[in-house]
Amino acid sequence: MAEPAKTLDGWYVLHDFRKINWTDWKKVSSEERESIMAEFLTLLKKWDDAQASFEGSHTLYSILGQKADLMIMVLRPTMDELIEIETAFNKTRLAEFTIPTYSYVSVVELSNYLPSDKDPEQDPEIQARLKPILPKWEYVCFYPMDKRRNGNDNWYMLSMEERQSLMRSHGMIGRSYAGKVRQIISGSVGFDDWEWGVTLFAHDVLQFKKLVYEMRFDEVSARYGEFGSFYVGTLLEEDAIKQYLHV
Amino acid sequence: MAEPAKTLDGWYVLHDFRKINWTDWKKVSSEERESIMAEFLTLLKKWDDAQASFEGSHTLYSILGQKADLMIMVLRPTMDELIEIETAFNKTRLAEFTIPTYSYVSVVELSNYLPSDKDPEQDPEIQARLKPILPKWEYVCFYPMDKRRNGNDNWYMLSMEERQSLMRSHGMIGRSYAGKVRQIISGSVGFDDWEWGVTLFAHDVLQFKKLVYEMRFDEVSARYGEFGSFYVGTLLEEDAIKQYLHV
Amino acid sequence: MAEPAKTLDGWYVLHDFRKINWTDWKKVSSEERESIMAEFLTLLKKWDDAQASFEGSHTLYSILGQKADLMIMVLRPTMDELIEIETAFNKTRLAEFTIPTYSYVSVVELSNYLPSDKDPEQDPEIQARLKPILPKWEYVCFYPMDKRRNGNDNWYMLSMEERQSLMRSHGMIGRSYAGKVRQIISGSVGFDDWEWGVTLFAHDVLQFKKLVYEMRFDEVSARYGEFGSFYVGTLLEEDAIKQYLHV
Amino acid sequence: MAEPAKTLDGWYVLHDFRKINWTDWKKVSSEERESIMAEFLTLLKKWDDAQASFEGSHTLYSILGQKADLMIMVLRPTMDELIEIETAFNKTRLAEFTIPTYSYVSVVELSNYLPSDKDPEQDPEIQARLKPILPKWEYVCFYPMDKRRNGNDNWYMLSMEERQSLMRSHGMIGRSYAGKVRQIISGSVGFDDWEWGVTLFAHDVLQFKKLVYEMRFDEVSARYGEFGSFYVGTLLEEDAIKQYLHV
Amino acid sequence: MAEPAKTLDGWYVLHDFRKINWTDWKKVSSEERESIMAEFLTLLKKWDDAQASFEGSHTLYSILGQKADLMIMVLRPTMDELIEIETAFNKTRLAEFTIPTYSYVSVVELSNYLPSDKDPEQDPEIQARLKPILPKWEYVCFYPMDKRRNGNDNWYMLSMEERQSLMRSHGMIGRSYAGKVRQIISGSVGFDDWEWGVTLFAHDVLQFKKLVYEMRFDEVSARYGEFGSFYVGTLLEEDAIKQYLHV
Repeated sequence: MAEPAKTLDGWYVLHDFRKINWTDWKKVSSEERESIMAEFLTLLKKWDDAQASFEGSHTLYSILGQKADLMIMVLRPTMDELIEIETAFNKTRLAEFTIPTYSYVSVVELSNYLPSDKDPEQDPEIQARLKPILPKWEYVCFYPMDKRRNGNDNWYMLSMEERQSLMRSHGMIGRSYAGKVRQIISGSVGFDDWEWGVTLFAHDVLQFKKLVYEMRFDEVSARYGEFGSFYVGTLLEEDAIKQYLHV
Repeated sequence: MAEPAKTLDGWYVLHDFRKINWTDWKKVSSEERESIMAEFLTLLKKWDDAQASFEGSHTLYSILGQKADLMIMVLRPTMDELIEIETAFNKTRLAEFTIPTYSYVSVVELSNYLPSDKDPEQDPEIQARLKPILPKWEYVCFYPMDKRRNGNDNWYMLSMEERQSLMRSHGMIGRSYAGKVRQIISGSVGFDDWEWGVTLFAHDVLQFKKLVYEMRFDEVSARYGEFGSFYVGTLLEEDAIKQYLHV
Repeated sequence: MAEPAKTLDGWYVLHDFRKINWTDWKKVSSEERESIMAEFLTLLKKWDDAQASFEGSHTLYSILGQKADLMIMVLRPTMDELIEIETAFNKTRLAEFTIPTYSYVSVVELSNYLPSDKDPEQDPEIQARLKPILPKWEYVCFYPMDKRRNGNDNWYMLSMEERQSLMRSHGMIGRSYAGKVRQIISGSVGFDDWEWGVTLFAHDVLQFKKLVYEMRFDEVSARYGEFGSFYVGTLLEEDAIKQYLHV
Repeated sequence: MAEPAKTLDGWYVLHDFRKINWTDWKKVSSEERESIMAEFLTLLKKWDDAQASFEGSHTLYSILGQKADLMIMVLRPTMDELIEIETAFNKTRLAEFTIPTYSYVSVVELSNYLPSDKDPEQDPEIQARLKPILPKWEYVCFYPMDKRRNGNDNWYMLSMEERQSLMRSHGMIGRSYAGKVRQIISGSVGFDDWEWGVTLFAHDVLQFKKLVYEMRFDEVSARYGEFGSFYVGTLLEEDAIKQYLHV
Repeated sequence: MAEPAKTLDGWYVLHDFRKINWTDWKKVSSEERESIMAEFLTLLKKWDDAQASFEGSHTLYSILGQKADLMIMVLRPTMDELIEIETAFNKTRLAEFTIPTYSYVSVVELSNYLPSDKDPEQDPEIQARLKPILPKWEYVCFYPMDKRRNGNDNWYMLSMEERQSLMRSHGMIGRSYAGKVRQIISGSVGFDDWEWGVTLFAHDVLQFKKLVYEMRFDEVSARYGEFGSFYVGTLLEEDAIKQYLHV
């Protein structure tokens, strides 16, 4: 049996993708829409407070294409809080005008493929990566992925040394995008249908394509990567939400 | 032909996953909601009585993410009772406010890969594992799985000795989580679309990820495991149900 | 080119799986429900008459889990009659309260892998197997399947001798369940999405699991079997239908 | 690069599969149903006129099982006419009572695997095969298919000679069913999700099973065939439509 | 690690496929339909203005078959504009009568497999290909595709030289269709579920089939191509829209 990778695990993450039911939304009177918006903004305010006291983080993006209109991404120290948040949102009046299209359950993860001599519990940089306040960058890209287990291309049958060596060159591509793309890897083995969720943030949306395409020629992706659906969108800050939902 | 594994089979199991139709649920008057809840709690009371007299067991969990809101897991000595229970639930008023999203039919199973010199019919520990009263642990994880039959990675073409040896090391990982994760394996060959259902219980949800990820590096999973969807959630005890459904 | 198997073909078969729309069904007045039931029982009476005069056979089972509530299985000498029966059922009022979830079109089949010196047209046992009156056994299991055509595991590239030898050992497992499991194989090449439908009947539902699991270690299944969804349920005799639909 | 096959292409084909919404259809008054039927028969009359002047062909079949109730198959010299016909049908009142379940876009095709010394533009037999008036045979079978491109089983990497030799033996099976099964091959590369649509007509529905099963042992199918869903049904002539839709 | 291909990236592209809800559309009064059409034509006018000032391009096609009735294809310099356009369309009254069936997010792409000594930023021909005004050709064909990563058929493990050589012969097929088929390749790695979208325009719809089929025998497609769904349709110019939606 190959030596398993060890992981550091941080905040739990829920990615929640929804479409807007525009037809029904337009039927509501503008007063009701105001009141529905106010209820939602009150919920957002609570999330903002949690973020201000480093008890979690969240962000909203508009998604392009028919797969979703909205991505709500929330991080919390416990999975229980995520269930509460999901349930609270589902009970809002705004939720009645949304159609769930995809969700993803995971936990922020750092792996031991890139070894460190730091004590992760004490190191502030590692702690900040495990419990990240999400950046307000203009674009987001989300996709789930697996490491392949198929005939001769079986990641989990490789030795720790082979995996470490492969991950090192993979990580170097990632680092060459420092400042252009911020990446949050969250593990979902035992939690959801793929093994990892990858959330990328950028100021220039083209950097997602450049990064993911360059990585695809790297053996880790070329031989061992299996990818789910890709979601891409633009930041939806609080003041933009009202405009977005204005009909 | 390889020697087939032999199994001991216990109680039949139904995993029933549902979403709540919150929009319709909110439209109902609070009195009606009370009466609908009361009807459901009466049904739960009957299940509690069955469990008290060791004629089965059941549990409810809130599921995180859009795949489901609720998992109802019921065990009974016969499959007929499970059909009666499913039908009875479907006839309740609460069921009108739920949307079925997934279900799984299986029977609690112990295999002869880990041989024993005990008489299973007499041994109280084996009987307790075949007819388990479900623990009230905080978290649940459910997933179905197959053993792979693909080119050179064909579990069912291995000899009994090879399979026993592989399962032994696999079982050792499981045992190292004793006290942290309780596991119920239920067989579904001939009953449902995968060969087994795996239900894990834990006090710390992260243990699911650690266990499943560690096992993935073991040859049994790495070469021979095929996995379906993963569901994860938190215990929903009777007093929490009312709060959960409060709108 | 490998020598094709030859088949004897009997009655045409429709497996029709439906869910009950309990919410709508409960809204109907009890008088209307009575009248809807009466219309359906009149249809069943016609099917009973056909069966009594050996012009076909049929049976109803309750299915466990969310895949279906009901399986209606009908056999007739011609496919035209099956279309008439399906259309007639679709025009009943009861059908308005059902949601189609799966169906399967096939014809009862015996293959020449297990050679015989009998004249099939004259032999009463072969005729009874090709035109079977379905047994009123307590449990049913249905699944569709293919023989694999994948790289080195390609059933259709094997010689007739290899296939006959493999099928012989496969058939021996089946025969060891005589009296416990009755099996109807129906061919669907050219008729539906898999190559065969397998319908099993038993007095003890666990026998389905034992039989299918034991066969999975046999090379015919281990290397060459591809399986679709499994449906399992309990017999729903005429007097039980009323109780089943009572709300 | 292997020498590509050359094709002769005839009329464009739309296969349009629909279910009937019987519940809604029954709610309509019988007068309205008459008027809806009359509108549809007027449309059919136009198609009949086109067929009478050899400007296309069409046919209707009842499909068995839940995949569809109705198959409308229409051939026309241009794809534009098929879009007009589809749109015209969608605008009829009858279409409101149908639920689209599958469709297929292709063009009648003859390939150069079976070489000929005739001038296809002049040869009346080839022209009749490219622009076929559909036979009024009792049964239809439709399925889409691909030639496999998978590891060592890659049709498109074979030389023209290998493909011609394989297709010759394949064609001989087809010819042995002359008079029993009429076959229309239509190419859909660049038009729809599979590479070909196969439409078979027979007087005896069992001939579909015999033909497709026999071919499955031929290397062209055994190693290189990938098959989609199969649809099977009975001819629905104009006078039978009224009876079929009578409720 | 193989040397990654480099790309030039131009305008962002949204392909948006919709079905018309004819039943609801017919229920609207003809005055309302006029007003809904007018609102939509006003939106189209804005798009026309953007195109006239080279700030993007767009086109509408009727799609044949049940996968969609309408394809709206829009190109813009930024992804933000595409989200605005999609949202604006979703807020129109016409959108209430459409059912989204598929969409694709990508960016017009030229690769360095076919090297050039020109400065792409200055070269007007390259700029025109990156920011194309869509041709008003009669037919469109759209499909997404991947390069395969499967065992020995792994595009991303080939050297740059091998890929360049393979792409050269592939490109020669494309060029032999010059004047008959116009092709826009748009990259979607990191943006959507496939790696590329291919949009073809032709005056003769049969040229799509000839081109795609001929390419399938080329090693780039034969060994390394994976294809999604194909959509084919006819140009829907502004004056034809009114007729198309006339009921």
